[in-house]
Amino acid sequence: MTGTAAIIGAGLIGRSWAIAFARAGWTVKLWDSDPRAPERAQATMAELLDDLADNDLLDGQTRQAVQERIAASDTLAKALEGADWVQENAPENVAIKQALWAEMAPLAGLSTILASSTSAIVPSQFTEGLSERERCLTAHPINPPYLVPAVELVPAPWTSRETMSRAEAVMHDIGQVPIMLRQEIDGFVVNRLQGALLDEAFRLVSDGICGADDVDAAIRDGLALRWSFMGPFETIDLNAPDGVRDYIERYQPLYTRLFHSMQRRVAWDGPVADQVEGERRARVAKSDLAERQRWRDRRLMALRRHKQEAGRRLGD
Amino acid sequence: MTGTAAIIGAGLIGRSWAIAFARAGWTVKLWDSDPRAPERAQATMAELLDDLADNDLLDGQTRQAVQERIAASDTLAKALEGADWVQENAPENVAIKQALWAEMAPLAGLSTILASSTSAIVPSQFTEGLSERERCLTAHPINPPYLVPAVELVPAPWTSRETMSRAEAVMHDIGQVPIMLRQEIDGFVVNRLQGALLDEAFRLVSDGICGADDVDAAIRDGLALRWSFMGPFETIDLNAPDGVRDYIERYQPLYTRLFHSMQRRVAWDGPVADQVEGERRARVAKSDLAERQRWRDRRLMALRRHKQEAGRRLGD
Repeated sequence: MTGTAAIIGAGLIGRSWAIAFARAGWTVKLWDSDPRAPERAQATMAELLDDLADNDLLDGQTRQAVQERIAASDTLAKALEGADWVQENAPENVAIKQALWAEMAPLAGLSTILASSTSAIVPSQFTEGLSERERCLTAHPINPPYLVPAVELVPAPWTSRETMSRAEAVMHDIGQVPIMLRQEIDGFVVNRLQGALLDEAFRLVSDGICGADDVDAAIRDGLALRWSFMGPFETIDLNAPDGVRDYIERYQPLYTRLFHSMQRRVAWDGPVADQVEGERRARVAKSDLAERQRWRDRRLMALRRHKQEAGRRLGD
Repeated sequence: MTGTAAIIGAGLIGRSWAIAFARAGWTVKLWDSDPRAPERAQATMAELLDDLADNDLLDGQTRQAVQERIAASDTLAKALEGADWVQENAPENVAIKQALWAEMAPLAGLSTILASSTSAIVPSQFTEGLSERERCLTAHPINPPYLVPAVELVPAPWTSRETMSRAEAVMHDIGQVPIMLRQEIDGFVVNRLQGALLDEAFRLVSDGICGADDVDAAIRDGLALRWSFMGPFETIDLNAPDGVRDYIERYQPLYTRLFHSMQRRVAWDGPVADQVEGERRARVAKSDLAERQRWRDRRLMALRRHKQEAGRRLGD
C-alpha cells in the first residue's frame, strides 16, 4: 500500500508514530503547534532509528533511508494536504482535542482517515460535530508503536464500517496488529485488561498476601511467558485436553469463587502506595529511573527481534 | 546446595518436577501408586530432556547425565528415605490428599520439607492434623516448572518461618523463582491475577466489544511484552516520569471508573463460551490441539532461552 501520513504533535507519541509509518515506506509530514518541536523530534528520531538499526528492526533499511521520508510541515494545512492518514497526538484534554479536531478535520481530503492516539477519551467526545465524523476514530498505540505492535482501533457510533476496515488494512500494512473494537468503551480493551489485573495486584499487596515484587515475579516469570506469544484465551485453550470449553468446565467453579472475593477496591493512592513505592525504590532509585527506562527499551527491542525470529522458525 | 527430592506421583507434573530437580544436580526418587508409572515417566522424560538439550536448556549437561539422577522407588517409604524435599503431585481431591499426606508425612525425616503441587487446595486442608505440619506447604508450579520459573510457596497457618525460608532457598537453588505468599488464600496469587484478567476478557467478548482474538492480540502483541520481562508493577513504575506514585496520581481516576464498570460477572459457560470456542476452533481444529501444544512448548523453550541470553547481555 504505502501512502502519506500526517503526524499532528511531535512529542513522544507523535515521533513514535512517525517512525512506524516511515519504516513501512510511508511519507510522513510532521506538524506541531510549537514550531521548534519538529526539528527537536528529528534529532531524537535519529537516535531511535540508530537503535532500531543496531537491533535489526528496520527491515534491512538504513536509518537515513527511513528518516528521509519524514519532513516537517510549517502549517497544519500543509501537513494535511495529500495525507491518507492523520494521526493526532495532542494532550489528553477534551477541550484541546475538540478545538484541534474542529480545525483539522475540514483540512483533510475527502477520503482521508483521521485518528487520535488518545488512551482515555472515547472518540465520540471530539468528533460528534464534525461533517467528516464517519472517517474519524481512535487509534491508540501501546507505546512505542514501532516496538509494540498492538494498536486499538475504536469507532465512535458514527464511524463507518468502511473506515474501520480501511484503518485495519493500513495498520496491517505498517506492521501493526489492530485490535478491532466494535464500539467505544471507557478504557478501551488494553487498559481495561491492565486495570483488572492491577486492581487484584494492589489488593493482594494491600492485604499482606505478598509483596509487589512477588506480583511482578508471578507475571514476569509465570503467566506472561505464554501470554507474550499466545494471549490469555489461547493459553487456556491449550491448558485442557479438549480446549477452552473443557477448561471452562474444569475451572469455572474456582474462578467464580475468586470473582466474589474481588468485589472490593483498594485505593491505589492509600497506604498500599507507600509499600509499592518503597519496594520499587529499593530496586531502582528515583535518580536511576531514566536509565532503567533505557534498559526497558533495549529489552523490548531484543524481545521484538526474538519474536520475529521465533515466529519465522517455529510459526506464530 | 543439592540434595535428594522425592517426587510422589509420576504424571505430567511429577515428571516436570523430576526434570527441574535433576537438572540442578539433585538426586530424584520417583514413586507412584501405579507401579508401572515411573517406567513410563522415564521414557517421556527422555524425550523432554532431548528437547531441552536441543534448546541448550540443560546448563551444558547431557540428557543422560541428568536422567541418571532420577530413579524409581518401589515403595513410598523408600522414596521418602533420606529425602530433603518431598513434592506431592496427587489428584486435586481433598480426601485423596488427606489420606496420602497422613501416610506420607510420618515417613519423612525430621528436617524434610513436604510440599504439594496443588493449584486449588489451600495447604491447611490436608496438613492440619499432622505432627509434621510446620514443615508442610504448597509449592505450586506454573507448568512445566523446568521452563516456567515461577513457583508459588504457600504456607498453612502453622508452617514455620524457617520452613518457608528453607523452601525459598531450595527453589532458588534449582533455578526457580519463588513467589512468597505470607498466608494462604484461595487461588493463591497466580490464578487470582489470571482470573481477574480473564473475567474482564470474557466480559468484553460477551458484551460484543471485541472478539477473543482481539483480546489475545491485545495481550500477546501489547501488554505481555513488557510484562514478560518486568511484571505489571515495574511496567507502571517506568510509565510515569517519577515512578509508580506519579503513575497512580495520573491514572487512578481512570482505573477507578473502570473498576466500577467491572462489577458484574459473565458466566464463562454461558453463550460467551460458544463464541470463544468458535473463534478458537476456527484458528486451531480440535484434532490439531495436541500439535499446537507441542508448538507452544517449542515457543516457550525459545522464549526461555531468549530471556536467559537477554538477561546476561542487557541485565535483568
